[in-house]
Amino acid sequence: MTATHIPVQAVVEFATAAFAKAGVPEVDAAKAGRLLVESDLNGSDGHGIFRLPQYVGGLRSGRVDPNGAIVVDIEGPATAHIDGGNALGHLVMARATEVAIEKAKSQGAAWVGVRGSNHAGAASIWASQMLPHDMIGIYLAVGSNNFMAPWGGFERLLGTNPIAFAVPGLEEPPILFDMATSIAANGKVQMAQQRGEPMPVGWVIDRDGNPITDPNKADDGVLLPIGDYKGYGLSLMIGLIGATLNGGQFGREPTDALASNTGQAVLALSISRFGDANAFKRRVDAIARDIRGSGRLPGVDEIRLPGDRASAVREERTRDGIPVPPSLRAALDKVADGLGIAHLLPA
Amino acid sequence: MTATHIPVQAVVEFATAAFAKAGVPEVDAAKAGRLLVESDLNGSDGHGIFRLPQYVGGLRSGRVDPNGAIVVDIEGPATAHIDGGNALGHLVMARATEVAIEKAKSQGAAWVGVRGSNHAGAASIWASQMLPHDMIGIYLAVGSNNFMAPWGGFERLLGTNPIAFAVPGLEEPPILFDMATSIAANGKVQMAQQRGEPMPVGWVIDRDGNPITDPNKADDGVLLPIGDYKGYGLSLMIGLIGATLNGGQFGREPTDALASNTGQAVLALSISRFGDANAFKRRVDAIARDIRGSGRLPGVDEIRLPGDRASAVREERTRDGIPVPPSLRAALDKVADGLGIAHLLPA
Repeated sequence: MTATHIPVQAVVEFATAAFAKAGVPEVDAAKAGRLLVESDLNGSDGHGIFRLPQYVGGLRSGRVDPNGAIVVDIEGPATAHIDGGNALGHLVMARATEVAIEKAKSQGAAWVGVRGSNHAGAASIWASQMLPHDMIGIYLAVGSNNFMAPWGGFERLLGTNPIAFAVPGLEEPPILFDMATSIAANGKVQMAQQRGEPMPVGWVIDRDGNPITDPNKADDGVLLPIGDYKGYGLSLMIGLIGATLNGGQFGREPTDALASNTGQAVLALSISRFGDANAFKRRVDAIARDIRGSGRLPGVDEIRLPGDRASAVREERTRDGIPVPPSLRAALDKVADGLGIAHLLPA
Repeated sequence: MTATHIPVQAVVEFATAAFAKAGVPEVDAAKAGRLLVESDLNGSDGHGIFRLPQYVGGLRSGRVDPNGAIVVDIEGPATAHIDGGNALGHLVMARATEVAIEKAKSQGAAWVGVRGSNHAGAASIWASQMLPHDMIGIYLAVGSNNFMAPWGGFERLLGTNPIAFAVPGLEEPPILFDMATSIAANGKVQMAQQRGEPMPVGWVIDRDGNPITDPNKADDGVLLPIGDYKGYGLSLMIGLIGATLNGGQFGREPTDALASNTGQAVLALSISRFGDANAFKRRVDAIARDIRGSGRLPGVDEIRLPGDRASAVREERTRDGIPVPPSLRAALDKVADGLGIAHLLPA
């Protein structure tokens, strides 16, 4: 069965209705609904409407607070520390990026760290918030579940802690890059599980160091980091700076079942503080074109810039809607029935 | 033949004398000499006194300006753009980190970008400058030589662009992590060349995508990025933010043989703007101990934190001196003879 394409606005409204019915104040529900769909628009299918059942489940069980107060509790001229009050991650990160952008307008750069947050969708959307302001964005997030071990170890002490960067071009699409520090993100393991397909050797090892290829046994092992010890080091540093610095949860720290205390951080960097913004964007365009037009290895059709696919998907989905496969539709119908709201699609 | 261990102060004085004789003003020569040896103290043997012949060669040939004026030419409350005037990279980065630290004291965070700089030794030493100020440091550098290709390509359009992070512990050594975005740094290729040893499959590929294992043929190929497209994306982002943003050289941009126009950037982040600094450092200690004591894969003797080796080497070399193997000693004697200064070691 193929996916049905649903107009973006309908998906936003469905998510908004679900959040509101789950107790989130209307204006916040609308904001979270709009921001949730940003992940789908960037092509991060595992981080958009796909996650709505998880988010609504969190709100209904009390693990996420629909009325969580998001408070800037320590503030410097170019910094802010935010306690997210265990609100929806999208609302916490929206506030964090708004504060970072405002501060970077006057200070040139700003770093905002949060604790008490939750999963906030695809990393790229938070780095991208800076682009309309002629700023470069960097975003770090610390997973509240650990899937990776220190290099040489087998204990799950590290998240796949992603990092994202966004740099604007002038005529070329923005360069957006986000990555997990593991070879395969946990979402890819889940997809292999859903599809009943084996995982390639190199994604997961067991505690003897042997590969696990059955995705149903992935929980017995650990995800391998990129670049061996390098991915371990990156994940650790993102954890320390994105969570520990802010009082967020990291490593072996106990999980409160009623709050994941997710840590995230964002940097906004105003381009005009380093030279003319348009001149910079023209140089970015030139570099993007150089790379796209450069010599290809045999069998390679196209050299892409990070963000090329996100831009193409955004254009396509804005026009044609967001693809909702039957399994997701069923899961969303269940959410709608549980909340007593209208289905995303009439039966 | 084994390495001779030379007291740290003697190595600093030798480098200082060499820089001064090559035209660098005395006070700057002393500063650069001291900072050059920091790489040796961190255990980055390929980035310390080993590079002196290259640096002196640059100064004498005019490729590096011994009197280059280092100017903060655009300044915001939390940002600075520095034109390094093609001075020694160590002097440019020393100024950049000083400015970043001063600004972060009052603003909480500061980002400083430089153009017109040069090779500045090991990345870790610049991130580490923030540690005594209870700050976290991040440093990005953009190689003036390209060794990597875009993912799917074979043209050398990207440097191995390193990134470094430094986070202080309270009783535990600082967590220092620096990495090149390629699987093997170019220095490792040079070492394999010197030793006449083959390179492992996976370091370098040729333009058909086949592995090159003869280090003497490495120049016919490209270094592979960590994590496939992820290392490509990271290298690209570091290039755009570390060089392009500052007007430094990146990608296919022409190299002026008389100036490499290296771009670098540094972030200083004041810990106390996010909570109590000692409480943070205690949490870092606890995480470091958890990781060190965690379960090991078969055959693994020890789980290390990034920076553990640097701290051990620093202690050892501060006590026993810096190892200078015969080949390096010969190269340094040649530098001394060329400049007319005393040898590092009496014959």
